[in-house]
Amino acid sequence: MHTHASLFVRLAFAASLLASPASAQPVLPSWNDVASRAALVDFVTKTTTPGSPSFVPPAERIAVFDNDGTLWSEQPMYFQLAFALDRVKAMAPSHPEWKTKEPFASVLKGDLKGVLAGGEHALVSLVMASHAGTTTEEFSAIVNEWVATARHPKTGRKYTEMVFQPMLEVLAHLRANGYKTFIVSGGGIEFMRPWVEHVYGIPPEQVVGSSIRTQYEVRDGVPMLVRLPELDFIDDKAGKPVGIHRHIGRRPVAAFGNSDGDLQMLQWTAAGAGPRLALIVHHTDGEREWAYDRESHVGRLDRALDEAAARGWTVVDMKRDWTTIFGD
Amino acid sequence: MHTHASLFVRLAFAASLLASPASAQPVLPSWNDVASRAALVDFVTKTTTPGSPSFVPPAERIAVFDNDGTLWSEQPMYFQLAFALDRVKAMAPSHPEWKTKEPFASVLKGDLKGVLAGGEHALVSLVMASHAGTTTEEFSAIVNEWVATARHPKTGRKYTEMVFQPMLEVLAHLRANGYKTFIVSGGGIEFMRPWVEHVYGIPPEQVVGSSIRTQYEVRDGVPMLVRLPELDFIDDKAGKPVGIHRHIGRRPVAAFGNSDGDLQMLQWTAAGAGPRLALIVHHTDGEREWAYDRESHVGRLDRALDEAAARGWTVVDMKRDWTTIFGD
Repeated sequence: MHTHASLFVRLAFAASLLASPASAQPVLPSWNDVASRAALVDFVTKTTTPGSPSFVPPAERIAVFDNDGTLWSEQPMYFQLAFALDRVKAMAPSHPEWKTKEPFASVLKGDLKGVLAGGEHALVSLVMASHAGTTTEEFSAIVNEWVATARHPKTGRKYTEMVFQPMLEVLAHLRANGYKTFIVSGGGIEFMRPWVEHVYGIPPEQVVGSSIRTQYEVRDGVPMLVRLPELDFIDDKAGKPVGIHRHIGRRPVAAFGNSDGDLQMLQWTAAGAGPRLALIVHHTDGEREWAYDRESHVGRLDRALDEAAARGWTVVDMKRDWTTIFGD
Repeated sequence: MHTHASLFVRLAFAASLLASPASAQPVLPSWNDVASRAALVDFVTKTTTPGSPSFVPPAERIAVFDNDGTLWSEQPMYFQLAFALDRVKAMAPSHPEWKTKEPFASVLKGDLKGVLAGGEHALVSLVMASHAGTTTEEFSAIVNEWVATARHPKTGRKYTEMVFQPMLEVLAHLRANGYKTFIVSGGGIEFMRPWVEHVYGIPPEQVVGSSIRTQYEVRDGVPMLVRLPELDFIDDKAGKPVGIHRHIGRRPVAAFGNSDGDLQMLQWTAAGAGPRLALIVHHTDGEREWAYDRESHVGRLDRALDEAAARGWTVVDMKRDWTTIFGD
């Protein structure tokens, strides 16, 4: 029985190397013929082939993806921080007091070290000043405007042109096989929703992220949701399984991350019964992207890398495994 | 142009009275030929007919439904309260102190008036005692066991046999036309998720509700989410648009409610640009179900009924409009 099932899965797997059943498009074309690619293709095949002992019913095909460092780059700082800094500069004319008030004064002087010297408190101040005080619809328009125009200081690309082509192919392959793909990010949910639908094909209702509070108001007869300067939820580390449960309500069968912030999400996913895929994107390509892991201040990958080795999770070596990073 | 479009919509509408395009099943068979039915069918037709001036792209076809009183009954008390009372009775042997401690003592004596005399504080105590302290998976199993066995005191039916057949048909008709259907309820999200998928066809990731906090823990190497006795979110009244935005991230085009607790959700939905449907289920059938509105302690419908009249929202008269309530 076991032998037959394995043979069956292997045949299906071999077939899948050529084309995905739903689209007849090549599967994961930007991936070299490496173990991580094989693990991905094998997992999708065995969980979606009727009669396979690892078959997962369509309703339970939930895959969750971290965003920063997993679907797009995150160096030299989280892109949302670049947005917050740009936003503070844009708002500065209405806030003359910022010229002498930290962390705003450092932002306006372009002194990132000075900003970071203020620690977490300074960053929260920046996020509140730059993310709150508008309606939800105004904020969405502000994000769209920034995403359409802002450029990364090193690559000169738009930030949405720094998404990982090989990961777009993973998203497409999963969806072509009946998986629902979700983002589960420490980033702001309202910072992601305006653009992830057209960039990743992930609709707003499948985005889980950190949030500030909103409040319903009716002003001059017009209902609106106003963004308040209060943290609501931090979707990071042990918050990720909580956010997954809150939004999705069932345990994913596949999880994709790149840092210690994803460790609990990977643990929670991998600990479920039946077939599970836990995958870590390891940033190893200092030429085409950035190389960093255990010592990095952004996207540190230390404990999760050890746990991946101990538990047999799939680790992607970006330099070795991907033929392209950004898909040029 | 307007005349042609209207004619087009009317023809499509007439066709839709016979069969839905996707399934060739009769559309809303448990509805009499009344204005509310016409409004429903017309709305679905005009928002899903390519070329219609009211066409809504598939990704934006979001419909939200209150649960208590909109999809199933809610008298003489919210069914979740019946669950909480049963749960307190089941847990009582491990809590000898409850014999003399309110509101538990009243619950154990079967004195509902005594319970309610404690007001909101007593109800919150009951919910915390009966809903917290387990893992999420244990709680789900407890709910499933209750739903499979508990019977309504008046009808003798299982609670899930007290869902409204005409509303199941609305859910089916919307989904057959590319709508995503969500529950947005003041009830507990974890109380609904275990059974709404097989009863309503709504998956857990499309359920929005009130919640208590959960916490991620690893016990003896096993990751779990533990339910804490702390309120997290109240998805009622002005909380409903907030919950919708948090979970769905875009404004629904159709909303269905039955009480003042749904007023803000209906306002928020109706105030969007383009075609919108706001519908209220009015409980008018004292024989087949219950008749109540402005004076009821459960599911009070007062302000929202006035606003429905003022704004031209659709109001369903259950006695007049529905050929059956529970679908016997």
